[in-house]
Amino acid sequence: MILRNIKLTITYDGSAFHGWQTQANARTVQETMEAALEKMTGEDINLTASGRTDAGVHALGQVANFKTGRNIPLRGFERGLNSLLPPEIAVISAREVSPDFHSRTWAREKEYLYRIVLFNGKLPLLNQRAWIVRNRLRLGAMAGCAAFLKGKHDFTSFMASGSSVKTTTRTITGLEIEKTRNREYEPMDLDEIRIRIRADGFLRYMVRNIVGFMVEAGLGKREPSEVEEVLSSRDRSQAGPCAPARGLYLYRVFY
Amino acid sequence: MILRNIKLTITYDGSAFHGWQTQANARTVQETMEAALEKMTGEDINLTASGRTDAGVHALGQVANFKTGRNIPLRGFERGLNSLLPPEIAVISAREVSPDFHSRTWAREKEYLYRIVLFNGKLPLLNQRAWIVRNRLRLGAMAGCAAFLKGKHDFTSFMASGSSVKTTTRTITGLEIEKTRNREYEPMDLDEIRIRIRADGFLRYMVRNIVGFMVEAGLGKREPSEVEEVLSSRDRSQAGPCAPARGLYLYRVFY
Repeated sequence: MILRNIKLTITYDGSAFHGWQTQANARTVQETMEAALEKMTGEDINLTASGRTDAGVHALGQVANFKTGRNIPLRGFERGLNSLLPPEIAVISAREVSPDFHSRTWAREKEYLYRIVLFNGKLPLLNQRAWIVRNRLRLGAMAGCAAFLKGKHDFTSFMASGSSVKTTTRTITGLEIEKTRNREYEPMDLDEIRIRIRADGFLRYMVRNIVGFMVEAGLGKREPSEVEEVLSSRDRSQAGPCAPARGLYLYRVFY
Repeated sequence: MILRNIKLTITYDGSAFHGWQTQANARTVQETMEAALEKMTGEDINLTASGRTDAGVHALGQVANFKTGRNIPLRGFERGLNSLLPPEIAVISAREVSPDFHSRTWAREKEYLYRIVLFNGKLPLLNQRAWIVRNRLRLGAMAGCAAFLKGKHDFTSFMASGSSVKTTTRTITGLEIEKTRNREYEPMDLDEIRIRIRADGFLRYMVRNIVGFMVEAGLGKREPSEVEEVLSSRDRSQAGPCAPARGLYLYRVFY
């Protein structure tokens, strides 16, 4: 039997799941999606994502693929999955791809978005959507860090301690900081900082550790030029705090 | 003992609660707040709001007051409550007011915000924050309804059936419709419609029934001029569907 290879683009609210990857006694995106796919196809489905997202991390454009022997049309997968899946996950599109396409190994680049809202207090409606930072952030200092971080580096200092990977060298091809208004709390007219970071791959917690450092620089606790020393130290303890998962969005995967 | 009368301005994520009012076997805002206040003061606290909000309805500026014999400073109430309350509720401010101030009976006007996002599909990150409407809405027709709804009318047709109130006449002093961009799903650049409605008081479900009618008009299913007939019929069945709670925000209470 010839198996079709289906590529799904997915969005989910990370606050409703314990991350992507199936694990015992926890609701995960992978498990929820595989259950819906198995219900639709009657097959045993193995859904492979472009990469795991950690608990609390959102996705605007996660990509995953699976093999099926069923002749269900692509629109049928889109509609059927969206009706079977809970409101916290949606399928944006289903496409048939070449048999050897693999969501993870074929990914050339990934882009993440990190959202920071500036406010000195609690914001219930933004609590699971952004990192609420209580102080003013100097954008110039944050952009200064970006200049040092862009390009090809050994990012060991920005990797979760205890990770084991073949190589810790990655190339950041884009790192932009934008200041915008957040209208979720309209009466207050909040400032929001959106950080977009694109690379040929990311180490575990790399985006969150980079954002954590940039915020320290924005607060004046670190100098942008320290990025160079931190990178060359190859020591996680040099880079500072990890930004919370709730502000992080997997934005897009490039193939 | 002279009791102090404390006025709290509160924001909450309505999706986390079964409405304002305490009820058996359900997590409510009132019960959660009274528990925090009782923990702080050691007193039996009765917290009175400007009005109940239904399950799923959010608040950006709900007002509630309570009496206390304790000499806790106002900043102490703000900080203490925010640390005792869950992330889904925040106290924006605590003010001492005159002994006869009453959150509900003293309210001169209230303003609600209703958010509609235009998209033909599921949007997990906006699911609990707005009404996702699948079609294009003609803003001109919605504004046409607003013109007929503004002013003093008997709003029986827009009241939840089975409600009992002394009078069903209310005066809508403001009703504006704004089209804006929603950036929650940035790659998609969604249109959002924000409806702001201000009145000297609201009947149960009145905002949601008005929004429901306006959306029907925006879809071309009803004519704006039908508002007059619907109002004069004093018949709930004439006004059409009720908009979902998840798009509704209690914006501000005026005293």
